Amino acid sequence: MHKPGDLINIVTKDDSFTGIYIPQKDEKFISIKLDNGYNIGIDKRKIKEIKVIKEYKEEKREIPKTKQKKGLKKISILHTGGTIASKVDYKTGAVTAKFTPEELLEMFPELKDIANIDSRLIANIMSENMNFSHYNLMAKEIEKEINKGADGIIITHGTDTMHYSSAALSFILEDLSIPVILVGAQRSSDRGSSDASLNLISAVYFIANSDFAEVAICMHENIDDENCLILPGLKSRKMHSSRRDAFRTVNTIPFAIVNTENKSIKFLRKEYNARSNKKLRLKLFDEKIKVGILKSHPHMYPEEFLSYKDFDGLVIEGTGLGHIPTDKEILEAVKKIKAVMVMAPQTIYGRLQMNVYSTGREIQGLGILGNYSDMTPETTFIKLAWLLSNYKKEEVKELITKNLRGEISERTEKEAFLI
Amino acid sequence: MHKPGDLINIVTKDDSFTGIYIPQKDEKFISIKLDNGYNIGIDKRKIKEIKVIKEYKEEKREIPKTKQKKGLKKISILHTGGTIASKVDYKTGAVTAKFTPEELLEMFPELKDIANIDSRLIANIMSENMNFSHYNLMAKEIEKEINKGADGIIITHGTDTMHYSSAALSFILEDLSIPVILVGAQRSSDRGSSDASLNLISAVYFIANSDFAEVAICMHENIDDENCLILPGLKSRKMHSSRRDAFRTVNTIPFAIVNTENKSIKFLRKEYNARSNKKLRLKLFDEKIKVGILKSHPHMYPEEFLSYKDFDGLVIEGTGLGHIPTDKEILEAVKKIKAVMVMAPQTIYGRLQMNVYSTGREIQGLGILGNYSDMTPETTFIKLAWLLSNYKKEEVKELITKNLRGEISERTEKEAFLI
Repeated sequence: MHKPGDLINIVTKDDSFTGIYIPQKDEKFISIKLDNGYNIGIDKRKIKEIKVIKEYKEEKREIPKTKQKKGLKKISILHTGGTIASKVDYKTGAVTAKFTPEELLEMFPELKDIANIDSRLIANIMSENMNFSHYNLMAKEIEKEINKGADGIIITHGTDTMHYSSAALSFILEDLSIPVILVGAQRSSDRGSSDASLNLISAVYFIANSDFAEVAICMHENIDDENCLILPGLKSRKMHSSRRDAFRTVNTIPFAIVNTENKSIKFLRKEYNARSNKKLRLKLFDEKIKVGILKSHPHMYPEEFLSYKDFDGLVIEGTGLGHIPTDKEILEAVKKIKAVMVMAPQTIYGRLQMNVYSTGREIQGLGILGNYSDMTPETTFIKLAWLLSNYKKEEVKELITKNLRGEISERTEKEAFLI
Repeated sequence: MHKPGDLINIVTKDDSFTGIYIPQKDEKFISIKLDNGYNIGIDKRKIKEIKVIKEYKEEKREIPKTKQKKGLKKISILHTGGTIASKVDYKTGAVTAKFTPEELLEMFPELKDIANIDSRLIANIMSENMNFSHYNLMAKEIEKEINKGADGIIITHGTDTMHYSSAALSFILEDLSIPVILVGAQRSSDRGSSDASLNLISAVYFIANSDFAEVAICMHENIDDENCLILPGLKSRKMHSSRRDAFRTVNTIPFAIVNTENKSIKFLRKEYNARSNKKLRLKLFDEKIKVGILKSHPHMYPEEFLSYKDFDGLVIEGTGLGHIPTDKEILEAVKKIKAVMVMAPQTIYGRLQMNVYSTGREIQGLGILGNYSDMTPETTFIKLAWLLSNYKKEEVKELITKNLRGEISERTEKEAFLI
């Protein structure tokens, strides 16, 4: 009989799968961890045969104590869960994410030559379950680390909503004096094929060797394990469900390309906030704020709008330059919405231009804001919720289309000509 | 005083604008058509001065009658409105879209050497207002043209929802024997800078010189006015709010590149449906079907799900490989939904893999379908509504993840390994 941690081979009618056996609560499936880092569940009814290929033996190793080296920068790594921080405990099947500095340095020994690392777990959550309370938690923990003298922060994070979190931290952390880099992985860290290693080492190298002091994401440039990009926290997005280079900038270019092999950092953008002596201030999220996202589509019904009537805010993902259907029933529904309504482009790329067509002007007349913005829908959602948490309604309406932290690109001369 | 059609110059506090004056119902704005094809509205309160630069004179021209040439293919152009079909009537300010074959050939004289063109208006609508009834209308008009002996159909269409319409027609038109190409423009046709001309001529050239017989979109390859792409109707998306190369394939490559200057068609994909003697069958949309789209995001509230409780269908734009928040309140809400629920990726690119994490398996257990699909959210929406219009609920659930018309790409060996 197979035991947790055993390498097993499962034969179904049509297929054969080999991986590490992981016990699960769900009794209908047998779960194994494949060599590529994914867990898969195989329907027990379809299984013809299970063979144990190699039994699991617990390794007992002594972890060497590491010393802090003088002269190196102090970097705090705060773990929040997700694929990057995950290690499978083959005894219980649970994914643990309890890295001591020693364990982490053992996994990534390169780190200790680049910086003095302090590492702890502040949450253990799949990123699809992140909410405003987690943004506040991360911000408070970052503040603690800064007060303890950290030269830079790395947040390890699930990739699903990492771009929402990077946007949230960009707004919360006012007068940030050091870099805060979010790092994720598309494959868990204890597999040879994981992208975790390069992403993490590149982030540490970048913090240790630059004067950059903004919130950014560090992920693969392409599917080769060579370069990582430093992506702006407010203008990036997960654009692929599984590729390691899933994170892309929108309406801008990355801050920098990092290559740890060649020990090089190439800045693509000259303008960024550098390290300073500024004193951090936190402008946190109000966890009671209700903001929804509604995507415009053909054949809409008024109730799709009306369900957000009593929300505090509503992001509308419009088509094209910022449009929704303009039949009478829809416009009547829009009129009843008390939420602050803000348009965002469902094309993802490009800028809203709601004065070009009369329909665009008509819906602006009904209070839909956001004209000329080139924020992603995700950044628009985070900004609206953050503004509603910290400002009066009239201020929110003014600030939503004003560039506060680099979230809205300056209009080029050609664009600005379209009023 | 300026009259409709006059070239005028408007000076505001900070700017100066020159364009053709277009009267509008909205009395707060003065509208002019800029040289780049956009209409802009300028707040009257901000205007300091208006000068007439050139008065409008109506040109009286006799339009030469065109003859049908023998040996050339018969192409029917069906206009539905939108930017491409628009010509500003400077008398009334209204955008008209009434092209006779003669007018059209006068605007694009190249066409008459490529094919025998028949052209008529079947609707006059901004594409953000398209609904299922318009899909049915287009399909019925296409059927008429096929019965009259057309060798190919071109639908001119607003770009905002052109990819939803191309998906809808791909499903409605069963056993299609000739090509149906949707063509739009990002600038209206009566401006020198319009992209309408190249898009339209390329579509006509492609139909006249290939054996292709599927529903596709013909738009610019890049911002140079050189090549157009033939994009699959089910796997393309408007990915930019204003660029002329806004339409991109998702999880596949275009069918072909057309260059009318060099008279070349380069097929990038070898497999496509060729012309045949098949007899067209229409499987229309039921206009009473209610399908919504809900985008997963951090800090969701149960009522965002519950508002779709009594819809027929719901597309959920999940994060990553197909996830939503899994806290108790959300899962309780999901349980109450009677609609057929189908996952789609908010990353746009990539495939869903809902067996990888236990949370993905959990929500599948609650009836959320769509695993392994790589359809865009827009194609998923159209397919779900079309299936609900034509099949029983149990059939819908089976067919939604089955490839019917090329909407779901075959899994590569590497992908298929992840059950």
